[in-house]
Formats: sequence, structure tokens, C-alpha cells
Amino acid sequence: QINAQRLWDSIMETAQIGGTAKGGVCRLTLTDLDRQVRDWFVAQCEEAGCTVTVDDMGNIFARRPGKDNSLPPIAMGSHLDTQPTGGKFDGILGVLSGLEVLRTLKDTGYETNAPIEVIDWTNEEGSRFAPAMLASGVFAGVFTRDYADSRKDREGKSFGEELDRIGYRGTEKAGDHKLGAFFELHIEQGPILEDEEKVIGVVTGVQGMRWYEVTVTGFESHAGTTPMHLRRDALVGASRMVEAINKVALDHPPLAVSTVGLMEVRPNSRNILPGDVFFTIDLRHPDDEVVVAMEAEVKAELDRIAGELKLEIKVEQVWDSPAVKFDQACVEAVRTAAAENEYSHREIVSGAGHDAAYMARVVPTAMIFIPCEKGISHNEIEKAEYDHVAAGANVLLRAVLEYDNR
Amino acid sequence: QINAQRLWDSIMETAQIGGTAKGGVCRLTLTDLDRQVRDWFVAQCEEAGCTVTVDDMGNIFARRPGKDNSLPPIAMGSHLDTQPTGGKFDGILGVLSGLEVLRTLKDTGYETNAPIEVIDWTNEEGSRFAPAMLASGVFAGVFTRDYADSRKDREGKSFGEELDRIGYRGTEKAGDHKLGAFFELHIEQGPILEDEEKVIGVVTGVQGMRWYEVTVTGFESHAGTTPMHLRRDALVGASRMVEAINKVALDHPPLAVSTVGLMEVRPNSRNILPGDVFFTIDLRHPDDEVVVAMEAEVKAELDRIAGELKLEIKVEQVWDSPAVKFDQACVEAVRTAAAENEYSHREIVSGAGHDAAYMARVVPTAMIFIPCEKGISHNEIEKAEYDHVAAGANVLLRAVLEYDNR
Ligand SMILES: NC(=O)NCCC(=O)O
Ligand SMILES: NC(=O)NCCC(=O)O
Repeated sequence: QINAQRLWDSIMETAQIGGTAKGGVCRLTLTDLDRQVRDWFVAQCEEAGCTVTVDDMGNIFARRPGKDNSLPPIAMGSHLDTQPTGGKFDGILGVLSGLEVLRTLKDTGYETNAPIEVIDWTNEEGSRFAPAMLASGVFAGVFTRDYADSRKDREGKSFGEELDRIGYRGTEKAGDHKLGAFFELHIEQGPILEDEEKVIGVVTGVQGMRWYEVTVTGFESHAGTTPMHLRRDALVGASRMVEAINKVALDHPPLAVSTVGLMEVRPNSRNILPGDVFFTIDLRHPDDEVVVAMEAEVKAELDRIAGELKLEIKVEQVWDSPAVKFDQACVEAVRTAAAENEYSHREIVSGAGHDAAYMARVVPTAMIFIPCEKGISHNEIEKAEYDHVAAGANVLLRAVLEYDNR
Repeated sequence: QINAQRLWDSIMETAQIGGTAKGGVCRLTLTDLDRQVRDWFVAQCEEAGCTVTVDDMGNIFARRPGKDNSLPPIAMGSHLDTQPTGGKFDGILGVLSGLEVLRTLKDTGYETNAPIEVIDWTNEEGSRFAPAMLASGVFAGVFTRDYADSRKDREGKSFGEELDRIGYRGTEKAGDHKLGAFFELHIEQGPILEDEEKVIGVVTGVQGMRWYEVTVTGFESHAGTTPMHLRRDALVGASRMVEAINKVALDHPPLAVSTVGLMEVRPNSRNILPGDVFFTIDLRHPDDEVVVAMEAEVKAELDRIAGELKLEIKVEQVWDSPAVKFDQACVEAVRTAAAENEYSHREIVSGAGHDAAYMARVVPTAMIFIPCEKGISHNEIEKAEYDHVAAGANVLLRAVLEYDNR
């Protein structure tokens, strides 16, 4: 059994790094605050007797040796970056529970067969640099290092520059680090486990998701003197598009979701008709075919609206993360671990993307979910219960040992 | 007759201060660039033999004495601030034509009866600090100095702080400066004069306009895990509102206009449902009663949409500038000046707000319009023809002398 209080205290300690007035965390990837939490994490891992390495995507690996160090390590982990208005648990729980497992093994002197590792993946959130899960994506061969380095935030700073700046560019090529399995503990970020009063979600896969960037161009002119029939207002167009995108998900009930989360209006002046609007689209469904159908419907709607209002439009797909099925043996290890601990549990498909989704391409992978209050995440008031946090970490520990003992 | 080349050259010279790559000007009020153009203007006025004073709203008055300096001065002027993506002529034309009139009087040694002044009004655009025409409004007693000082830009800096910072807080109380009449030359900013091939617009008044600030509040949550039916997405709400606001103007054809020019989404992250959206509304019509009706319709629509989507909404009116009728004698002086110069002309009502709209409350006032290409303004490609600029300044000169000779 892990030390629940120590794990909880570590979570609360990291929540201070970028802590917000509303009790959340703003620790965007590759900022100074990200460096600060990384430094803290590396120090804690070394204190727990681990060897720390960093790859050229800034992914951090802390290893505790096993009896047979020729075996590929069994890894745990998640991410320490957050949304601009993020919570204390999203990602952090998975990394610090991994650390807690290593601390517990050290305390008890338990010797595993394979080495055990905990990983902090860079830029999971995708909020600062799109797409999400960028560095685990490079690790899994989905993206190239050059592509990742070239991704820019909305201020024009690139991932590569910022990784160099915070001093977390390691030498090992991302993906060269050999792993035997990967387990990620995470809050559900949705309402299902809480609703059904289950403590553990045995995650069998991740739904499909695609991201797009849209620029709508009209013509800037004076709000007081431009008659309605002569207007080419990019914001009227973008607004009609937001409504249409919302409707496309409503047309595929009950599982489809679509979101416009980011919008920028230019020149953004009260008495100028907007000349340009930039916005993003996020489409998701557990079935990739439905995602493809939604994309086609969205594109047709955007074209129709642009034509109607004489606007120009540019639509670029910036991410395609197909639905994922996790490894049967890993999922089984999670189910067994939950059962042995006598925690109530159910199978579940993840609505959110996770580093585990990319890891599943290159190494046997599974995930463990615990409930979060009202399913709320990507919000500063995100909450997880002490007992659920402990349960999740215990299942993580047991699943890793289960897998190690096969 | 004024010196057309000298006036044109001055316009092109000031266009360098804040000049943009697309040939426009970005010289927001009370920025360092605004200070720079003010310094230039004061130096030019002094070189033309004028005495310069500044009031406590940063309005600049340059006076050329007349034969009888006990008479209140006849003033000309407009503003040197611009939109973020503004043109070379909006406002600047009126100030520099006033300067050109003073230079012409000096060159010819012409002695007026009353003193003649040219004025640069602070913050006409209202883009950085809402509302527009803020400092001429304080001059005319529409707003208090405290109200003006307290207005904040979107970064939270106040008008008062910024006026102090650029060193243009004069000692004279705004409004204490006595004037006998006010003439403002401006580009039309609309398509009518060009359409009808008229060189001069004899402006008889300004339409009514109201501004609002709206905050829509929903609930931030995860884009991938929040089912459609549980969402309270502030951007879906704001988008539906933009469409409704647009429709309200379409329902009052052909003269009503409505615009959402500025919108900010929070937290503005690709995978978070927007929790808050802030946007502005601009409603205009030549008839104040229609503006009132539009306001009621807009408010009812916003309430309906907020209810539909379970969003909270806050609507604040930040500006009410009723329709204005200019002084008959001043309008007559403009008409006579246009006729004497044999320029084609027509009466016109201004769709844009102008400092003259507030000056009309406290002093006999009129305006002169010249065409601008395709009616385009509040756009970097805004253009006025050399001959039209010269014609406008000549009408300004003649109207002032006409009024002086009554
Ligand atoms: N877990 C999580 O919130 N990941 C970010 C990627 C996504 O939007 O699903
Ligand atoms: N002339 C001008 O563009 N003034 C700004 C105020 C308005 O929006 O009409």
C-alpha cells in the first residue's frame, strides 16, 4: 500500500507552483513555472534513489533498478503541465503517484524484476502549443522532432526555443528510450464514475479526436458608416460557424462532442467591423468513422456560411488522433489490481486525450481512472477525493507489480 | 487659397508616426506615439506664430490672435489619435487643415476679427478607452473629468494615468476655454459623396449611437469529456447573440447599423469550453427613437439566448450619444464656402461620431466632409484624393472667414 498522506502532500505542494487565486493551477508547458516544477520533480526522484535522464523533447525519466536490468523498464507517468485555468490533479496525479510508487518500493525494500520508471511528458495539454500530447507523440513516432520544435504559441514563440530556454533539452533522441509497458493514472475528467459510484475506471481505450484552425477573412470598415448590405463582417461569419459546429455534434447523439475553445478577433476595436477571426475546432467521437463524417459536415457548413457572407475562409487540420484500444494484458493487470484491492470498478473509454494514447502505439499500455467531482476538469475548481487518490495510486502500484510478476 | 502641397506633405509626415506595413497608422490615444505626434504638432503651431495651451484633458489649443482679442476665438480641429488599424486621414485631416489655415493666414498676413484656433482633441476614437469623443465630451460637460480619468483600456491602464504619463495634462479645466464657433473637416468615412461624385459634404448633423459591454458567463469544462447536453458554453451563447444583434439592425432597414467589434474569450484554450466571453455592441440610427427600439430588441434577445443556454449575462451601457443637429449659421457658412469655391456639394448626416457632435452642445458648430475611396475608413487602406483634401481645406478656410465676417 502506498503512503496516501505523502502523495496528497506532494500534490498540494506542486499546486503552489503556478497556483491561482481560485485554487487552480496555471503552469503552461515550457514556462518558468514548468521549469520550477520539473526541478522539484527531478530532486524528489533523486532523493527516492532514482537515476534521472531527459530526452530531446524534454521528457523526464526517473528509473529505479530491478533485479534484472536487462529487462525493459515498466513505466508509469503522465504530465506536470496544466491548462491556463487548470486544476491540481489533471496530469499531476499520474506523475506524483508514479513517484509515490517508487518511494513505497524504496521504503519497503521491495525488489522488482524489471526496472521501474516514472515519466513526466512535455506539453500534454496542447493549450500553449497545439497539438496535445506532442512530446509523447514524438516519442511514439507520430510527429518528428522538427515538427514539434516548430510549433508556435499564440505569441509566436516556438516549442523548440522554449524547451532550450528552460534548459530541459536532453541528449537522448525521443523514442530511443526502451520501455516494457506503460501505466497512466489520471482523473476521469468526466462524470461517469461519480454517477455510478465507482472508485476505479479500467480504461480500455481513448476516443478519436481531431483539431482544426480556421481563419475567416472579411473586410475591416467603420461600424457607423458601413451599411448592413455592404458588410463583410468576419465575426458575424465566425459566430454563425460556431453555431453550426455545435449543431454538427448535436446531430450525432449521444457521444459526439464539438468545441470552439479559442477565438481571436482582429483588429478587435469597438467601432470597426472585424476583418479577421481566428478560431479552433475540436471534434471527438469514440468511433473514427463518425469523426470523419463530422469533419465533412463541419467543412460543408463553413464553406456554405463563408459563401453566404462573402467571406474568405482557411481551414487547416492540425491534429488527428484516432481512437485507441489499450493492450489486453495491461488492462487485465489494472482490473486485477482493482479487484484485489476490493475497489468498485467498471470499464470506461476516455473522452480526453492522454500520453497513454500515443504510448499504446509503441508499448503495451493501459490507464487507470479515478472520479473527479461532478466530472469537472480543465477548470480551477477541479477536485478529487483523498480516498480516491489513494485508491488510484494503490491500483497503479499493484498493476505494475502484477505486470512485473507475469 | 491654402497651400495644398504643404498640407499633403504634413499629412504624409504625421503618417510616419505609427505608420504600419499596410500603409495605415496605429497611433492609439495616450501612447508614446500619440505624445510624439503631439510634440510635432505643438512645434508646428508655434512655428506658425501661435500660442499653445493644453487643458486638463490633454486637449491642445493653438491660437492666432485677431484684431479684437476680446472676441471668442473661431476654432477648427479634430483628432490625431487613430484606430489600431487606422488610416492616414481620419481625424488628422481636420487638425492639419486647421494648421494649414493658420499657416495660410500667416503667409498672406490676413488679419481676422476674432482670434482663430486649431484644436487637437484627446481620445476621439474610443478604441483604446471607451467611449469615443471622451475629451471633447468632458469639454462639453457630457462627462466629468473623474469619469474620463477612470476609464480603463483592456490591459487595465487608466486614461488618467496615461495622460499624466505622456505629460499632456494641462492646468486649464476642460470647458473653461471660451470658443465662438467650431468647424471640423473630416473624411466622410462612408460611400455617399463618392457615389454621387460630390466633392464637399455640408454636414447637417450626426446620427444617434449607443455602446454596450456584455459579459456572458457559462462554465469552463473539458472539451473531450463534457457531453453536449451538460454544457454551458459561453462562446456558443455569445455567437448566437452576435447573430441576433446583427439581425436587429437588419430589421430596421435601410439606415440602422449594429456591430460587435471586440470580443475576448476566456480562458481561450482549444480544449476548454469557454467560461466567459466579453464583447461590445455598437448600435446606430439617425433617429434616436429607433436606437431606443433597437436597444430593447437587443436586450430581449440577449436575455432569451442566455436563458436558453443557462448562461449568466451582464449588459452595461457605456455610451449614449444622441443624434445631433448642427448650428444653422455655421452650416450656412460651410455651404456658402463650398459654393463660392464652385465645389459640387450636398447635405449629409454623419454616420460616424465626431468631436463636433459634442462641441455642438456648447458652441455653434458645423462640419465639412470630403469623399474617401469606396467609403472605406477604420482600415489601413483608407484613402482621400489630393484634390479633395485641398478642396476641404479651402472650404474650411472660407467658412471660418465667412463666419468671422458676419
Ligand atoms: N487529459 C487532457 O486533458 N488532455 C489534453 C488533451 C485533450 O484535450 O484531451
Ligand atoms: N470619426 C470616427 O471614426 N469617430 C470614432 C467614433 C465612431 O465610432 O463614430
